Amino acid sequence: MIQQPQTLKGFRDFLPEEMLLREKVAEIMKKVFQRFGYDPLENPALEYAEVLRGKAGEEEQLAYFFRDLGEREVGLRYDQTVPLARFIAEHQNEITFPFKRYQLQKVWRADKPQKGRYREFYQFDFDIVGPATRMADAEVAQILYQTMRKLGFKNFRIRINNRKILAAYAQYLGTPKEKMSSIYRAIDKLKKIGKEGVARELEKTELNPAAIENILTTILRENSTNEEILDKLKKEFANTEKAQKGLAEIEEVLALLKPSSVPPESFYFDPSMVRGLDYYTGIIFEVEVTEENIGSVGGGGRYDNLLGMFTNQEIAATGIGWGFERLIDIIKEKKLMTVPKTNSKVLVTIFSPDLTKKSLEVANYLRNNNINTEIYLEPGENLRDQLSYASDKKIPYAVIIGPKEQERNLVTIKNLKTRKQEKTELEKLPELIN
Amino acid sequence: MIQQPQTLKGFRDFLPEEMLLREKVAEIMKKVFQRFGYDPLENPALEYAEVLRGKAGEEEQLAYFFRDLGEREVGLRYDQTVPLARFIAEHQNEITFPFKRYQLQKVWRADKPQKGRYREFYQFDFDIVGPATRMADAEVAQILYQTMRKLGFKNFRIRINNRKILAAYAQYLGTPKEKMSSIYRAIDKLKKIGKEGVARELEKTELNPAAIENILTTILRENSTNEEILDKLKKEFANTEKAQKGLAEIEEVLALLKPSSVPPESFYFDPSMVRGLDYYTGIIFEVEVTEENIGSVGGGGRYDNLLGMFTNQEIAATGIGWGFERLIDIIKEKKLMTVPKTNSKVLVTIFSPDLTKKSLEVANYLRNNNINTEIYLEPGENLRDQLSYASDKKIPYAVIIGPKEQERNLVTIKNLKTRKQEKTELEKLPELIN
Repeated sequence: MIQQPQTLKGFRDFLPEEMLLREKVAEIMKKVFQRFGYDPLENPALEYAEVLRGKAGEEEQLAYFFRDLGEREVGLRYDQTVPLARFIAEHQNEITFPFKRYQLQKVWRADKPQKGRYREFYQFDFDIVGPATRMADAEVAQILYQTMRKLGFKNFRIRINNRKILAAYAQYLGTPKEKMSSIYRAIDKLKKIGKEGVARELEKTELNPAAIENILTTILRENSTNEEILDKLKKEFANTEKAQKGLAEIEEVLALLKPSSVPPESFYFDPSMVRGLDYYTGIIFEVEVTEENIGSVGGGGRYDNLLGMFTNQEIAATGIGWGFERLIDIIKEKKLMTVPKTNSKVLVTIFSPDLTKKSLEVANYLRNNNINTEIYLEPGENLRDQLSYASDKKIPYAVIIGPKEQERNLVTIKNLKTRKQEKTELEKLPELIN
Repeated sequence: MIQQPQTLKGFRDFLPEEMLLREKVAEIMKKVFQRFGYDPLENPALEYAEVLRGKAGEEEQLAYFFRDLGEREVGLRYDQTVPLARFIAEHQNEITFPFKRYQLQKVWRADKPQKGRYREFYQFDFDIVGPATRMADAEVAQILYQTMRKLGFKNFRIRINNRKILAAYAQYLGTPKEKMSSIYRAIDKLKKIGKEGVARELEKTELNPAAIENILTTILRENSTNEEILDKLKKEFANTEKAQKGLAEIEEVLALLKPSSVPPESFYFDPSMVRGLDYYTGIIFEVEVTEENIGSVGGGGRYDNLLGMFTNQEIAATGIGWGFERLIDIIKEKKLMTVPKTNSKVLVTIFSPDLTKKSLEVANYLRNNNINTEIYLEPGENLRDQLSYASDKKIPYAVIIGPKEQERNLVTIKNLKTRKQEKTELEKLPELIN
């Protein structure tokens, strides 16, 4: 027998108070997604390893693969995009396109556990599968904005860029195709290592100094507005069709936000934003909290070549992966939301075993009035212990029905925070508690 | 690349319509548990294999065990009771007792998949950890009753028995200890194989015919009431202290239901009810739907010797495991609940690309009025296709804003079920849709 049983490293129990916060946050987010017509979906935790290996990515190496009792090679999902691709392939005749779904599920990665990084954690994704339109991109943008607002964030901005622009200026600079991803990686570090850092990284790619200077001039927004930087790039790439297309798409998305009363200044065109994953093909987003270097809480964008990987079709898609664990951490840190420690609103005490029946009746009455009510489950314990239990659990009220109260058909209600108590008629209790 | 990607056998995707039903059922059940002061809890999907092996049980053999990348032996949880025991041992100083929690999580068992049996499925448990009282047993009973009522079941009964009685009459009959579990198993089959079947099973245990006759007389309720059968057993076991205790406990629980307005006839004292799991120690329950042999949808009871398995303490506990998948299947079969196919209430169409802005404004207005609103994401498609999309997805309404409507500042709303449509002012739309 184990002496000190515990969870695996990087795995966590969620206690009631934590659960109540998580449920509240999830509920707010779901409401936003539903408001835009998204429906929930769930996939299995285990998939054929072959399915999970369908996408060669960095995360895949960290997946939990093993052989099941039937010697099948299986794995725990490490993201929600590959299972979505498998789902689309398997159910394409049962679903209606555009298919808009959200999904809040655990994923597992055998990553090195550290502060804020776990081996089991939630991801919260929403995606639009089907339309390859700016309308779809703009809807994603709107949802990003609405979600942040509804979660109570005030200082945030949503960076927007287009992979087409990135591709175009690599092309424009004459960068050979095989070097493009190291250039993306260098640019992606701009926020972390600054302009000089990026320059040093780019030197390693053996680009000539003029090209490097060119890249840096292009990707640095400095203090310009969205309009200014868009204009600058339009001139810079006047003869590069792909860049023009990428820029026009961004302009179109930003224009589509206005009729939806999303303030354009919440969006920040950032030509240096890359996003690590290789599979993006168009407009990309990253939501960041602009306080104390909190940084990214979610991101995503258009990926038209991924979902069809099992069917050899092109299936257009765009969507966002929220860093749900990150959101929870920030919401706790910034105290953006308060939740009670328990769902219980009131503890009905048992004055003495012979009054148990009366207390049961009162508890029943309160429950019938939609009040989350506990009754003390150990008749005979002294009242002080019963009240301590309620206080420890942060139940807001306690109700006491002693012989005097019973005789006069009254109950005593005690506010466990203010310690004030009063006698009242049973019928008035629900109002006093709510 | 895989040609026909699919889920593993016994694993399922839950499509939106299925999800909406599951969420509705779960929500109703959670509300009941919360009403009694229960809070949510979550444990990791993976545990140390050593933890999962803590309880020797039949299910454990079906668990998914494997070695992770760090060569640790780990396993997917196969129930929610063993993780609860580990949780209690790990967090006993952080939680307040009585600890009342509910838990709706997937579990995994490498069982032979068949109709209604899956390798990945939900379990919905609630438990009271701490009090070893009849008040706690009666609360469990009350919740069983309330849950069934709130789910819309009319024809159900809750079988109640006490392991103490079973133990006592094995003792009374002079059954050697090592034979008791085969006798329990035989009795447990009463519903399935009838009185003669049980008699044949008992003969295999080499009990003498008089003892067998005695058992059968004892466990068969026939048409007697709770009171009659309780009285019969009280007389039968007049000199067996343990049986008297077990019977008194049942009487006490039934008496405690009255002040909570639970009709006693919903409970059915069944001295032949055993429940398979070895770990029960007192009052046990089984909820059955009494229609067309539907049978059990949940059960449980008192198990005072299990949760302390990691700490060598006795930790009293009682609770229920709901057959959540079974409940879902029956609710669907019996059409006890209806859910929409989608969360969306209305599709705002786009009459022509130049009217996109107007449609976006209308969609935004509806969302601001708390209506789940989709906008068609492919401007330029013809209206008929847009309306087909809404019909296919069973969205109840569509809104059309053509040039005429725009000119007169009106919108057309179409009920997609009745096919009726009318022109109206924008401000009247929310009311018409809700």
